[in-house]
Amino acid sequence: MDIIDNAAVAQHLSHVRIVMVNTTLPANIGSALRAMKTMGLVKLVLVAPKTYPHPDIDALAAGATDLIEQIEIVETLEDAIKDCHLVFGTSARSRTIPWPLLDARPAAQKSMQSVIHSQQEIAVVFGREDRGLTNEELALANYHVTIPVNTDYGVLNVAQAIQVICYEMRMATLELIDKTTDVEALMPVTDSEAMHWDEPLVTHEQMEQFYPHIEKMLAEIEFLDPKNPRLLPLRLRRLFGRIQLDKMEYHLLRGIFSRVQALNNGTWKKTNADEDHK
Amino acid sequence: MDIIDNAAVAQHLSHVRIVMVNTTLPANIGSALRAMKTMGLVKLVLVAPKTYPHPDIDALAAGATDLIEQIEIVETLEDAIKDCHLVFGTSARSRTIPWPLLDARPAAQKSMQSVIHSQQEIAVVFGREDRGLTNEELALANYHVTIPVNTDYGVLNVAQAIQVICYEMRMATLELIDKTTDVEALMPVTDSEAMHWDEPLVTHEQMEQFYPHIEKMLAEIEFLDPKNPRLLPLRLRRLFGRIQLDKMEYHLLRGIFSRVQALNNGTWKKTNADEDHK
Repeated sequence: MDIIDNAAVAQHLSHVRIVMVNTTLPANIGSALRAMKTMGLVKLVLVAPKTYPHPDIDALAAGATDLIEQIEIVETLEDAIKDCHLVFGTSARSRTIPWPLLDARPAAQKSMQSVIHSQQEIAVVFGREDRGLTNEELALANYHVTIPVNTDYGVLNVAQAIQVICYEMRMATLELIDKTTDVEALMPVTDSEAMHWDEPLVTHEQMEQFYPHIEKMLAEIEFLDPKNPRLLPLRLRRLFGRIQLDKMEYHLLRGIFSRVQALNNGTWKKTNADEDHK
Repeated sequence: MDIIDNAAVAQHLSHVRIVMVNTTLPANIGSALRAMKTMGLVKLVLVAPKTYPHPDIDALAAGATDLIEQIEIVETLEDAIKDCHLVFGTSARSRTIPWPLLDARPAAQKSMQSVIHSQQEIAVVFGREDRGLTNEELALANYHVTIPVNTDYGVLNVAQAIQVICYEMRMATLELIDKTTDVEALMPVTDSEAMHWDEPLVTHEQMEQFYPHIEKMLAEIEFLDPKNPRLLPLRLRRLFGRIQLDKMEYHLLRGIFSRVQALNNGTWKKTNADEDHK
């Protein structure tokens, strides 16, 4: 993910709204706004909030004032989601009637696919601080969504849950954008691909000059016996092959090897070498 | 992920510690504990916290009192990570010298692979509320980790960042456990940890003896100027921090450094050195 098209990410995420039902604590609305803004979501709909407006909202939403101005207040959940194509109800508990249930990650992937491929409008609905969503409200959702947590401990509070959902929405968007622009990105990610690196990595071909150099240097200082190298060349390959050197590191190490060789054969002497030997 | 072995998840996550450096607000420590407990992490290490203990910690850590009792307080970051194999420093900004940088998700995957396949100890280090980690602290990490956020807005606060990291650690654990029941998932991965290594990896504390050794050797052969080392020490840390040396490699490299030192100061001579100089 080197170059991210921020405008495209923002555009996609503008199709995802967070809906909070009967929220009691203004601090939770403020935290929700902050979590949303950090991840690039912009639309918050409050269904009959208990306390609104309130200074705590502005305090906790520091820097997200543009989102406060766009908040929509409605009376019923139906009003909040009527123009949506795909509605997720958040639920920690299993209900009487099992519903299609997705974890946060696949739910976000499904959401953003629906946005990107068919411009759908998505809603994720969060319930009251104390008792979540009612069965009737949950029945309005296409899917239920849950965040896999430590079941021995309990659940996230509503602000934390919104944080995780918004994070997954952003991640799903980045992944999908990445995939649609770059076929290589569909390959399994290992360390090096996932790393943002400042220097190009060396090629296999360059490394094939590296190993003979370190081995020759080690032979010259009699650390390696060319007649009986044992496992040393293999260990060096395993070590430096694992590291994936970048070009600067490659030249740095080869510079060190050359210095040691020059020291050993007498073509390089310490600045104060003459004094040492007097 | 139908049936989850909760005991196994908890056991794996017990190898991941959260380290908070110079935290000012007790509320952030409390929120961190709550986020950890929700996701199944248990070990919090505080490096020289500004305010500790404090009732706000207990208030916000509601229900996570067992984790409060296990908090470890240390004076320096080195103390917090000395027995760790893999250290992640959280960083929002790009630095003078880019470090191996992973997004939260691949960082968590790498961490939990390292735990599950080779019982490594992992630390994720979070900095001060106002200015994060210093460059010196970041240089102690093997990798930097970042959470992809809306770059137009800024960064998560420390409690939110801990929430996301702990969530990804849990998700990575659930995925890996899921996969290990599947034979295909045991197929070679390029990650060193997944390769069932034959030698134990060195700890952070051992590496803190490695860096002074290579720097001293390079200074002695005048490859590094101790009065003006420029970026060289940092580049060496970045290079060898990324590699995660095993014990045999560690002793091999230190043996080479010692040989070069002995060659340089005349305490070791080539077998045929007399002939060469005649």
